[in-house]
Amino acid sequence: MPLHPDIEPLAGLLGTWSGYGHGEYPTIEPFDYEETVEFSHVGKAFLFYTQRSARAGTGSPLHAESGFWRMTRPGWVELVIAHPTGIVEVDEGRLDRNTIQLRSTAVSCTSSAKYVAEIERDFVVDGDILSYSLRMAAVGQPICHHLAAELRRTRS
Amino acid sequence: MPLHPDIEPLAGLLGTWSGYGHGEYPTIEPFDYEETVEFSHVGKAFLFYTQRSARAGTGSPLHAESGFWRMTRPGWVELVIAHPTGIVEVDEGRLDRNTIQLRSTAVSCTSSAKYVAEIERDFVVDGDILSYSLRMAAVGQPICHHLAAELRRTRS
Repeated sequence: MPLHPDIEPLAGLLGTWSGYGHGEYPTIEPFDYEETVEFSHVGKAFLFYTQRSARAGTGSPLHAESGFWRMTRPGWVELVIAHPTGIVEVDEGRLDRNTIQLRSTAVSCTSSAKYVAEIERDFVVDGDILSYSLRMAAVGQPICHHLAAELRRTRS
Repeated sequence: MPLHPDIEPLAGLLGTWSGYGHGEYPTIEPFDYEETVEFSHVGKAFLFYTQRSARAGTGSPLHAESGFWRMTRPGWVELVIAHPTGIVEVDEGRLDRNTIQLRSTAVSCTSSAKYVAEIERDFVVDGDILSYSLRMAAVGQPICHHLAAELRRTRS
């Protein structure tokens, strides 16, 4: 099925990606994780996005997230994500060649969730390597580095 | 893998559900849809939730949504959802026997999305039948009925 022309610039994301990342935050112990990310489509003007991570070594489930990527004007990406921690996130930003820099325009939390105020996500796609970093302002901390990972495409 | 005890009251949702629904809204033509909904878990204190619908008859993809269900106190459900229309939704509400009544506490939209202000979702689980209705305030309309469907569990 052909990709919807609106999201053709995101074609390089399609497939399943796996690899390793490292997480840190002022309020927690640093940790290493294994991660699988999947981007797929059904011919409509969005990509499906799912992420699952597990503690490196043990394989015990750590985080997950799911959402959708959109492009409604050239060079501009919109991302909506739900987290099992009771957070939803709206990000927007520029796609410039193989780099996507997204900044949250809204973050909302359930009444029991740990409060997240801001999220910034940077992605670089270099052929079959997808690298990302994520900064976050949460639980009263100023925005700072939280996650970085390098994934390899394991299925197109 | 055993269900996390926090979400044991949601055990009746687990599995894959398929069936038919009807949609209407003051600003659009009424429509019939086929739908598949899946609830799964990995032993942590949340359910994965995915939904896909297609136009009845043609099978062409219509909507999709994905997110997570949580319970952090007895009888109270939290739901976070992302939509490919550029919407994220936080809902909360009461689980009372086989009925779950959720009301949005936050709805956020990307800059290009059609504006949604409020969402209300009611679910009834009766053995292998899952019925739901959804009301919505969007694009300047007051909150009113949008979707209703009856699904049958096709896989546990």
